[in-house]
Amino acid sequence: MNESDMPELLRLMHAIVSFEGCQNFRLNESELLRRGFSKRPEFGAYVADLSRGTLVGMAVHYEIPFMHTLQPLLMLKWLYVDPQHRGRRLGQKLMGQMALHAHATGHDCFYWFVRRENVLAQSFYRSIGATEDPTWRRWVMGTNPGTMSWLMQ
Amino acid sequence: MNESDMPELLRLMHAIVSFEGCQNFRLNESELLRRGFSKRPEFGAYVADLSRGTLVGMAVHYEIPFMHTLQPLLMLKWLYVDPQHRGRRLGQKLMGQMALHAHATGHDCFYWFVRRENVLAQSFYRSIGATEDPTWRRWVMGTNPGTMSWLMQ
Repeated sequence: MNESDMPELLRLMHAIVSFEGCQNFRLNESELLRRGFSKRPEFGAYVADLSRGTLVGMAVHYEIPFMHTLQPLLMLKWLYVDPQHRGRRLGQKLMGQMALHAHATGHDCFYWFVRRENVLAQSFYRSIGATEDPTWRRWVMGTNPGTMSWLMQ
Repeated sequence: MNESDMPELLRLMHAIVSFEGCQNFRLNESELLRRGFSKRPEFGAYVADLSRGTLVGMAVHYEIPFMHTLQPLLMLKWLYVDPQHRGRRLGQKLMGQMALHAHATGHDCFYWFVRRENVLAQSFYRSIGATEDPTWRRWVMGTNPGTMSWLMQ
């Protein structure tokens, strides 16, 4: 990605977040510039640019630095291809770019999240050699004040 | 946590990583000091300190900054209590500290990973009001060179 990609990248990010049913989209171009091009960038992206300046797909990634191995964990944040440009193996190529990036930066693998009901995405990811994490499951706890006061007793 | 906790925190981190069957533990005290007390720390921790200077438990956390909401995601990295000090609700209190921390820093919830076969941990987490993530599942792909060249075709 480069700085001139930010308006289009923002459009694709908005599209995937809407598709995934998430609320409170607050990213904007200046936040993307600040977070993506600082000394310690918070994210990076590979983009599919079919015509001049118009992006049709993206693979956005970030790293989690604090690991017991001292080797950061590589996360794919969003893979997205505009619906009208699907069926051209762009998603597959973006995943290939991610795998090359992972390999070049010393990661044996990379991770991402898929909605449980998104069977189309799961089928795509399986077809390119990915699997659901066989070892770890994510858990969540809310910060309800009642629960908290009970926990602290 | 404070800087003098690092030797004990390192011992507890080594203990949980060994318990979880993970390899390549490379953290050391100087890395903990560098990563935990910089201008933008990579992690924080709540500790259970029963006797002077000897820690018996910890809740280690970090944040993922790049989110579409511009609100970081709070992750619990490790919850651990020394086996000889279990049964005293220290784990519950550390989770309470995490929930208070989450609430005070503007998070509605926080996340962590549990091994699929660790039913004791799952039972504990359920007992304090946590659940397995109902929406998202983590996926993984390796960076096998053969797969990568196929993907890029």
